[in-house]
Amino acid sequence: MISLIELEPNAKEPMYQQIYRALTSQIMGGTLKEGEYLPSKRVLCDTLNVSHSTVESAYALMLAEGYIESIPRKGYRVLRILALPDETETSLAENSQHLPEDDSSNQSDDFSISRQKLSFSTSSVETASFPFDSWARLYRETLYTYPGLLEKGDGQGDLELRESLCNFLSEYRAVRCTPDQIVVGAGASYLLDLIMKLMPERKAVGVESPGYPGVFKAGHFLGRDIVPISLDDQGISVKELYTHPEVRLCFTTPSHQFPTGVTMSIGRRSELLLWARQADAYIIEDDYDSEFRYQTRPTPALQGIDTKDRVIFLGTFSRSIAPSIRIAYAVLPRPLANRYRKVFRGYDCTVSRLEQQVLSRFLNSGGYSRHVRRTTRIYKERKEYLEKRLLDAIPGASISGSDAGLHFLLHLSGTDRETLLHKAKEEGLSLMSLPGSEAVLVIGFAGIVPEKADQMVSLLAGAVRCAGQSEDTDLLN
Amino acid sequence: MISLIELEPNAKEPMYQQIYRALTSQIMGGTLKEGEYLPSKRVLCDTLNVSHSTVESAYALMLAEGYIESIPRKGYRVLRILALPDETETSLAENSQHLPEDDSSNQSDDFSISRQKLSFSTSSVETASFPFDSWARLYRETLYTYPGLLEKGDGQGDLELRESLCNFLSEYRAVRCTPDQIVVGAGASYLLDLIMKLMPERKAVGVESPGYPGVFKAGHFLGRDIVPISLDDQGISVKELYTHPEVRLCFTTPSHQFPTGVTMSIGRRSELLLWARQADAYIIEDDYDSEFRYQTRPTPALQGIDTKDRVIFLGTFSRSIAPSIRIAYAVLPRPLANRYRKVFRGYDCTVSRLEQQVLSRFLNSGGYSRHVRRTTRIYKERKEYLEKRLLDAIPGASISGSDAGLHFLLHLSGTDRETLLHKAKEEGLSLMSLPGSEAVLVIGFAGIVPEKADQMVSLLAGAVRCAGQSEDTDLLN
Repeated sequence: MISLIELEPNAKEPMYQQIYRALTSQIMGGTLKEGEYLPSKRVLCDTLNVSHSTVESAYALMLAEGYIESIPRKGYRVLRILALPDETETSLAENSQHLPEDDSSNQSDDFSISRQKLSFSTSSVETASFPFDSWARLYRETLYTYPGLLEKGDGQGDLELRESLCNFLSEYRAVRCTPDQIVVGAGASYLLDLIMKLMPERKAVGVESPGYPGVFKAGHFLGRDIVPISLDDQGISVKELYTHPEVRLCFTTPSHQFPTGVTMSIGRRSELLLWARQADAYIIEDDYDSEFRYQTRPTPALQGIDTKDRVIFLGTFSRSIAPSIRIAYAVLPRPLANRYRKVFRGYDCTVSRLEQQVLSRFLNSGGYSRHVRRTTRIYKERKEYLEKRLLDAIPGASISGSDAGLHFLLHLSGTDRETLLHKAKEEGLSLMSLPGSEAVLVIGFAGIVPEKADQMVSLLAGAVRCAGQSEDTDLLN
Repeated sequence: MISLIELEPNAKEPMYQQIYRALTSQIMGGTLKEGEYLPSKRVLCDTLNVSHSTVESAYALMLAEGYIESIPRKGYRVLRILALPDETETSLAENSQHLPEDDSSNQSDDFSISRQKLSFSTSSVETASFPFDSWARLYRETLYTYPGLLEKGDGQGDLELRESLCNFLSEYRAVRCTPDQIVVGAGASYLLDLIMKLMPERKAVGVESPGYPGVFKAGHFLGRDIVPISLDDQGISVKELYTHPEVRLCFTTPSHQFPTGVTMSIGRRSELLLWARQADAYIIEDDYDSEFRYQTRPTPALQGIDTKDRVIFLGTFSRSIAPSIRIAYAVLPRPLANRYRKVFRGYDCTVSRLEQQVLSRFLNSGGYSRHVRRTTRIYKERKEYLEKRLLDAIPGASISGSDAGLHFLLHLSGTDRETLLHKAKEEGLSLMSLPGSEAVLVIGFAGIVPEKADQMVSLLAGAVRCAGQSEDTDLLN
């Protein structure tokens, strides 16, 4: 039952926010239980003596975040409590992005998603093992030892960071470059936009399909023609690229294709590079999660085997450090780098110089490699546990694309996709799936600890069973 | 005189790029001299036997980068060379971070700049008095008390920061908004790009001329038509806006016009708002440096007196905290904010959540207001000292636009602009000036301590004297 709410009319915090906080904490605290109804807006207005719009906003916010649901002619009912840590919940009011299912990779038409509270998100990562101490120490250190940092920095990013990146990339990714080829930016989407702006004459952009939805959007904003290129078990279809002479820029994820998880074969890589030379095209190699490999050694980057300045290498620290620290980088072929300095001359780098320097020192000190090794072990355990549970619980299920990265594909042959998504949604389970009638699910495991895995697997297994049974009836409708 | 251009039709490099390279290198090399006219597009097409659009693009690029200016009914004239030091031209662009004149406000066609080591840059700020301790403490605090921060955040920016901004804006700028209207982003340029992407249907963008060059470039990248709108002593000419019915988005800097320093009169503000309603247009109010006022009280923001959701308010902390901490924000009218959430759903905020939280706490603790008050005192002293020295040292000089912000205009009536810039460059002094034959200089004072002021003023005074003497002879050529 709802307990007394005390409001401070003179507090800085808006009234609607105070009400929101009071009610949600009662829900999180268990005072307000799942299934209970909240007082009607009118009643709450009178009790608290606040305007209708104030209560309106508070309820709207809670609805938006899935604390409550609106039952026609009955009122607002408390929903299942979110399985996320308190601070994330309460601090991120109004935040939709923090819910895994608002992962930008859910934005594509190529995916069908049900938006509920439990999800195999591809964007959440293990942050508990983040090296808080060294990061905070480095930040403080940087601030004191290098006050010049507060001045305007280099538009391409601080030289120190670009040097650290060069060393790191040559050691771990066999990427060959010099600091003048690197552009640091606040996220891969930002850099994608920048890269396309650098080549207005390349109107048609080839994109893996299914692929990373961010490219579709970036291209759309700049009036580019997005040309979907299909995939096979070796990666993007180069044959198909040859049938699109207008395409002279192609986006690809060779190390661990998003979302299929396919690693591009060495043969396909050279075919792709050959195409780029013959078509006078640039390849954007998005290396978004190659740090994490579980069986094989990391495949060297396309950029490293390219000898004709055809590859733009794109890297990010969103997955390997934390999504909230917005640092990504692009390695441009020299001609493009020179063009960048002309076209974007005078532009500021979009990343705080303080965090650029912290990252640079983090890379140089070896702290980053240690962190990646540590988290890779954690991810490997989570992955293997989840794989085993899934295969045990779901007869006929199979898994692919799990050698690297933070997600794999779960193939449920014979299960109707639409029906499954529908059933899963009823169970409060958010699923991302590939297009097609048979269910192929994209399973992100980075944030799935064993307990959560057990819960979600049984939910999923249940949904698969129902889907199997109800399939025929569904098909009749 | 222009010398032969050799093109390689089969080269990777697009033709327009080749032409661009050939011509700019002739300018940099001195073959094409300042003041000379380029061949007309038609002539060049015929000579090189290329399409009109090819030459068109090459000239457009040179215009955008300030190599040439377009003279009505006469053609394209070579501007003063942007004498970037060689290393900046080649691969060592990183050095450019030490050149104050890599200020983005040097990129406009409206400005002619010589690039040397000494400069009255408009982008440098006082960083010595930065509250290192509290900032570092807040960062550490944030990191420990709030590990959830490492998770993916709200695309609009963390709620805490957006709430702090609402309170701050209503208290100091009379801006009325709620957190859901605010979008946090890595710099004003980034947000300008985002705002234009939000309104693809508004192709024509009105821009104060002379004005902030960033808008010209942002518009150029997105294929918008930039419509220069002239200014008078009260601000942007609303009359002129009415003569451009196609313009339904207008960029303006009412508090302290960049670069003229004019503060838009109250009368003009209401005219502008009336225009926006009648034309169903949006106004982008860039409030880039209004924190700093020396005589009058800050004029309330346009956004605050607008009652019809016509104003997009744009603010930044680059000048009030530090250029290297990339945090800016836009306040969108509700309809636009809703549109933003649809169009950019799933996009990540480009600012590190850690620094978002630090800034939020910095604002709430009053630390920010204290910092602004402290630096305002410092800037007032520097400004008054520099003003006095300039007026003492240069007979007939006058100053305008110095009530607010971090720069003012120095009018040198009777001094020929081109000659002065030339002389100043010889003295190793970088000057930014308004277009026109008489010299009107843009003087940024934020980074000019007294000793530096003495040195630069005497250099400038010397250059003015020389310019005065040599003017006649120059005019004879």
